[in-house]
Amino acid sequence: MTPEGCDTSQSLYRDAGVDIDVATSALERIKAHGRSTIAPGSGSAIGHFGGVFPLESGPDQLLVASADGVGTKLKLAFVLGGEAHARVGADLVNHCVNDILACGARPLFFLDYLAMGRLDPVALDGLVGGMASACRENGLALIGGETAEMPGMYAEGEYDAAGFIVGAVAPDRYIDGSLVQEGDALIGLPSAGLHTNGYSLARHILGLTGDHTVDQSILNRPLPGGDGLTVGAALMQPHLSYLPAVPPLIERGWVHGIAHVTGGGLTDNVPRMMPVGLAARFDPSTWSVPPIFDYLVHAGSVSNVEQYRAFNMGIGMVLAVANERAADVIKQVSEARVIGHVVRKSREDEPDVQGLIDGERHDG
Amino acid sequence: MTPEGCDTSQSLYRDAGVDIDVATSALERIKAHGRSTIAPGSGSAIGHFGGVFPLESGPDQLLVASADGVGTKLKLAFVLGGEAHARVGADLVNHCVNDILACGARPLFFLDYLAMGRLDPVALDGLVGGMASACRENGLALIGGETAEMPGMYAEGEYDAAGFIVGAVAPDRYIDGSLVQEGDALIGLPSAGLHTNGYSLARHILGLTGDHTVDQSILNRPLPGGDGLTVGAALMQPHLSYLPAVPPLIERGWVHGIAHVTGGGLTDNVPRMMPVGLAARFDPSTWSVPPIFDYLVHAGSVSNVEQYRAFNMGIGMVLAVANERAADVIKQVSEARVIGHVVRKSREDEPDVQGLIDGERHDG
Repeated sequence: MTPEGCDTSQSLYRDAGVDIDVATSALERIKAHGRSTIAPGSGSAIGHFGGVFPLESGPDQLLVASADGVGTKLKLAFVLGGEAHARVGADLVNHCVNDILACGARPLFFLDYLAMGRLDPVALDGLVGGMASACRENGLALIGGETAEMPGMYAEGEYDAAGFIVGAVAPDRYIDGSLVQEGDALIGLPSAGLHTNGYSLARHILGLTGDHTVDQSILNRPLPGGDGLTVGAALMQPHLSYLPAVPPLIERGWVHGIAHVTGGGLTDNVPRMMPVGLAARFDPSTWSVPPIFDYLVHAGSVSNVEQYRAFNMGIGMVLAVANERAADVIKQVSEARVIGHVVRKSREDEPDVQGLIDGERHDG
Repeated sequence: MTPEGCDTSQSLYRDAGVDIDVATSALERIKAHGRSTIAPGSGSAIGHFGGVFPLESGPDQLLVASADGVGTKLKLAFVLGGEAHARVGADLVNHCVNDILACGARPLFFLDYLAMGRLDPVALDGLVGGMASACRENGLALIGGETAEMPGMYAEGEYDAAGFIVGAVAPDRYIDGSLVQEGDALIGLPSAGLHTNGYSLARHILGLTGDHTVDQSILNRPLPGGDGLTVGAALMQPHLSYLPAVPPLIERGWVHGIAHVTGGGLTDNVPRMMPVGLAARFDPSTWSVPPIFDYLVHAGSVSNVEQYRAFNMGIGMVLAVANERAADVIKQVSEARVIGHVVRKSREDEPDVQGLIDGERHDG
C-alpha cells in the first residue's frame, strides 16, 4: 500500500520511533495466525476495519463478554523469553474462556490488544502464535486486534497484552449463582499453578528485580518438591482452560454456580457466585496444594489470610452442585474434588468464606 | 466481601504494590459509570465474571468487533491531567465506534482494559467517566472491563488504555468496499484534529520530553491561526464519532465503501475499502486542513508523503458513493465534502492513492 517513490528510509515518523512498514509486515504474520483459528467457510474474517463473526438466526441468546490481561506474569516472560511469549498469549485466551464459562457461556471469538514501545517481531509472533493456538484448542476464532507501537511508554523488551472474548449462552442456561443453595457441594477443579494472578506478590517474595541476569538465576533454581521443575518453569505453568470439563456438566443441568478463581483467590471469587445469606465453607485438607505455592508461602511467610486471597492455592475453578450430584460430577471429571459446602450464615456479619484460614491443609 | 478479621494493613500484597481494597473501591465507582450506560430493563449487566448483553431472536446478522487504543495521545493526558483523562476515555469509545461503522455496523456494547502501575483513582474515574459518557452519546452499553494494577510496568502517573467494541449489521448491509466502482465520489467527513493517530510524530516534532514542566510550557503556547486555542488544546481535540452522520446514508443504500482514517492516514486506510484495480484520486484543494496540522507540518518540515500517512490531515472518515449521489449526501450531512474520486488503475503498479503528494492544498 506504500505509494511509489515513498522513501520511508527518510521517515520522520521512524525517527519518532514508529515504523509503519515494520508494522505492516508484522501485521501480515498476525493475520496468518488469526486465519489459522477460523474454520473454512465460517464467514469469520479479519483485516477490514473490524473483525466479523456471523451469527445465524435463532432463539434469544445472551452474549457474554470479558476483557483481561495476564498481569505481571508478563514480567517473567520478559526475563525468560522464547516460549514464554507464546505461553502468556495462551494464558490470556484461557483466562478469558474461563471468565465467560463462569456464566455458562461458550466462546465465539477473541480479539487482542498488544502494546510495546517498539514492535518486537519475535515477541509479537510468539504472543499471537500462542493466542492462535489456544483459540484453536478452545474452538474460538481470533478475528482481530490492535498492535500499538508506543515509543516511550514501555521499557525496551517489555509490552502489555490484553484479551477480549465474546461468547453466547441460552438464557435458560445462563449461570449467575442464583440457584446455589445451602448444602450444595463445592467442587474444586485443580489449577496448574498461579495461572495469571499473584505474580506481583510472587516477584516481591522471590526478590525479582527486573534485572534479567539476576532474575534468571533466581528463576533457574530447582523448586523444592517440584520433581525437577525450576521455580521459573513452575511459575510459567499455563492458565488451564476448563472448557473441556465444564460444559457437559452444565448441559446436564447439574451446575448451580461457577467461580473462576482469579485475583482475590477463593476468598473474593467464590462469594461472587453465591446468593446473599449463604457462605462457602472449605476444607483445605481435601486438595493438594502444588509445591510452588508452598515455596512462595514459606519464603514470604505469607499468612493464611493472605495466601488464599493472593493465590488460587491449587484451585482454578469452583462449581456449586447439589450435594447428591457430587459423585456424578467426579465420575465425569476425574480431577474434580469436593472441597467444601455451601452453608447458611447464622448472622449477617459472618464471613462469606469459612474454613480456609483455620483449616488444616492437605500437603501435596 | 472481605472476611472479618482480615487485617489487610499488614498485607504483603500491598507491600508488593497491589492493594486489593483500593481496587475494590475503585471497581465500585467503575461499575456505577457502567450502569449509567445501560438502559433500565435492557438486561445488560456487569459485575459477574463476564458482562452480559441480551440478543433477541431474529434473522442472521454479522457481529463486528474491534479492539483499539489511543496511542501516545495518552502521554498528553499524563501531562495535562484533569479533563484530559475523560477526553482519552471518550476518544477510545469513538475510535472503536468508527471502526465498526466502517463495516456498516451499529454498536451494541463496549469493554475496556486499563493498566497502571498503581491504581490512580482520579485518572481511573476520569477515564471510565469519559468512556461512559461517550457510550451514552453513542447509545451503547459499557458492560465490563479489566483494571490491572501492575507494579513496575508503568511509570508513576502513566497508564495504558484499550477499548473493545461489538456491534451488529444485517448481512445485506455489511460494507466491505466490494461495491466501490470507478467514478464513485469520495466524500470526506472532517476530523476535529489528530483524533488518535500521529501523536508519536507530533510529540517528536514539538520536542516533548516527558518532563511535565517542560511539556506543559510547550503545550500552553498559542496555536498560530488557532483562534486562541493552545497547541495542547488543539492536540486534545476529541476523536469524533461519525455515528450520527453515517447510518442514515447506509440505510438509504447510498454507501459503497467506508474508510476510517486512523494510523497510516488517507494513504493506507482508503485503499483498505477498495477492490483491486481501483485507486483513490484526491484533490487536497477541496478541504480545509485544521491549523494544528499546518503547525506540525511546518515545525517538523514533514514531507507531503509523510504528512498524509502520519496524520489524517483534516479528514476522519471517507465514504465512497455513486458520483450522482454525492449532492444528496452533502445535503444530508452538511459538513461532508467531495474530496476525490475512484479511478481505474491503468497499470498494476500505479499507486493506490493519487493526488495527495503533488496536489495543491487548500489552506484552512
